[in-house]
Amino acid sequence: MKTILSRKDKQVEIGPGLPTVIIGERINPTGRKRMAMALQEGNLSLIQEEAVAQVKNGADMLDVNVGAAGVDEVALLPEAVRAVMDVVDVPLCLDSSKPEALQAALKAYHGRALVNSVTGEEASLQRILPVVKEYGAAVVGLCMNEKGIPQEPRERLAIARHILERAIAFGLRPEDIIIDCLAMTVGADQKAAVITLEAMRLVAQELGLNLILGASNVSHGLPDRQAINKAFFAQAIAAGATALIVDPIARGIRRSIRAADLLAGRDEWAMRYLEDYRHYQEA
Amino acid sequence: MKTILSRKDKQVEIGPGLPTVIIGERINPTGRKRMAMALQEGNLSLIQEEAVAQVKNGADMLDVNVGAAGVDEVALLPEAVRAVMDVVDVPLCLDSSKPEALQAALKAYHGRALVNSVTGEEASLQRILPVVKEYGAAVVGLCMNEKGIPQEPRERLAIARHILERAIAFGLRPEDIIIDCLAMTVGADQKAAVITLEAMRLVAQELGLNLILGASNVSHGLPDRQAINKAFFAQAIAAGATALIVDPIARGIRRSIRAADLLAGRDEWAMRYLEDYRHYQEA
Repeated sequence: MKTILSRKDKQVEIGPGLPTVIIGERINPTGRKRMAMALQEGNLSLIQEEAVAQVKNGADMLDVNVGAAGVDEVALLPEAVRAVMDVVDVPLCLDSSKPEALQAALKAYHGRALVNSVTGEEASLQRILPVVKEYGAAVVGLCMNEKGIPQEPRERLAIARHILERAIAFGLRPEDIIIDCLAMTVGADQKAAVITLEAMRLVAQELGLNLILGASNVSHGLPDRQAINKAFFAQAIAAGATALIVDPIARGIRRSIRAADLLAGRDEWAMRYLEDYRHYQEA
Repeated sequence: MKTILSRKDKQVEIGPGLPTVIIGERINPTGRKRMAMALQEGNLSLIQEEAVAQVKNGADMLDVNVGAAGVDEVALLPEAVRAVMDVVDVPLCLDSSKPEALQAALKAYHGRALVNSVTGEEASLQRILPVVKEYGAAVVGLCMNEKGIPQEPRERLAIARHILERAIAFGLRPEDIIIDCLAMTVGADQKAAVITLEAMRLVAQELGLNLILGASNVSHGLPDRQAINKAFFAQAIAAGATALIVDPIARGIRRSIRAADLLAGRDEWAMRYLEDYRHYQEA
C-alpha cells in the first residue's frame, strides 16, 4: 500500500518498508501564544519562517493548522497554505476539523494534499470524506468516534475499519486513508503507549493501511519530553508507523527517526542514515 | 518469571513488567587497548574506576570480562571480581566462555551472580550448566549453536528452547535462564535488528523466559552509534527485553531506557523516569 502526496515536482511516498515520512508539526498555534497572536492579526510571516526552518531540518511534508480563538479558518487556512507554498515546495497536510476550511484550502493548494483529519464519527465522515474525494486528496483517519477514544486496541482497529469502509463507500481507495491510532499522554495513563502501539500493529496486519502518528503528545506534562518522544518514535516505527507528525527542529528527533528506520530494515545500505549524518555534521 | 540476582543486601529483580535492568558493559577489554594492557599487567585499578563510574551513572549490575590476549582468565577473573566487589555493591555478571574461569569467579563472588554465557552448543551446555547449578547462579543463554547464529527468528527460538530443556535436565529452573537473542550489526545486514526483535517476541511469548541483550553491537561501524543504540533499546524494550548490557555512561542512554520503560507501562506513575530526571539534573 503506497500513499502518494505531491506538490509541484515533489512527490512523497508513504508506505510500509519505505523510510518514515517526517511531517513538521510546528505550524500550529496550539500552545504557541506568539503564533496564535500573529494568526489573529492575519500575519503569516511567522509560519513562513517555521516552514523554511522545518524543511531545512529534514521535514518531508508540513502540517498547516491555523485553528485559534478569533481566527476564521475558512478565510485564513487557504491564505496560510498559499503563504507556505510561496516559501517551500514540499507537500502539505491541511489540518482542520472544519470541512469548509479544508475545502477552501484544497482549492488553493497545488498538488495532492493530505487532509488532517476525519474521525469515525458519522458527522465527520459525511462532511469530510466528500471534500477529500472531490479534490482527489488523501485523508488521515483518527481512531475515535462518538464515544471517544477507546482503551482497547481492538476497538481502535474497529474504528479504523469503519473509516475505511465509509471512505470506500464515498469512492475513495484504501491508499487514500492513513490511520492515526492516537497517542495519549503516558504521564496520565501508563498503558497509553502500549495501547497505541498494539492498535498500530493490528491495523497494519489486518487492514494493511498506512499509519501516521501525531506523536509528541505522548510526553505531555513530563520533563525532557524529547527523550520520551524519541523512544516512542523508535517503537512506533518498529510497530509499522509510515509517517510521523513531529518537531523536526527538536534536537535529535530526525536522527533518531533515521536510526529507527535503519533498524527496521527500511533504509538499504544505511544510505539515508549516513546522508543525514553527513549533511548535518557539515551544517 | 522473575530472575533474582544478589550481592550483599542488594537484590536485583529481572522480569517482564519490571523496569529494565541496566548492566554496565564497560569492564571488558575488547576494543579497549588501555584496559587490555592494564589487565595484562594485572592492574585492576582501571576496572575499579569503571565500576564506580558505571554504578554512579545508574548501572543496576556490572558485567565483568577480562578476556584479552595474554591474560589467564582462571587467575584474573576472580581477582577482578574481588576488586570490583571492593568498590561497589551491585550484583555482577561474570563474563567468560571458560568454565574454569567462571568456576573460580563464582567461588570468589558473594551472592547470586549471573553467568554470561552458555550457547546452544552441546560442549558449552555440558561444561557451563553444571557450574551454574553448583553455585546456584543464573545464566545467559545465547541463541547460537554449532552452525552459528541463524537468520530465522524461529530458529533462534528453537535454540533458546534447547538451552532451556538442557538447563532443566541439569537441575536448573526456567527463571535461572535469561535468553540473549543476539543483535548483529545493522550496517552489515539491514534485517539484523528486525530478526533479533522478532526472535525476542517469540521467546517471550512461547517460552516466557527473561530476555537480555548485549545491544551496543547493533551500531558497529556506523557514525553516531548512540543514536542507533538508543532507538534499538527502545524497540527492544517494547519487544520484551528485561535487561540490557549497555554503556550507562554514554550520553542519553540511561534516560532513553527509562523513557522506553515508561512507554512500555513498566514504570508506574513515571516514578523512575522522574527520579532519574531529578537525580541527573541535580548532579
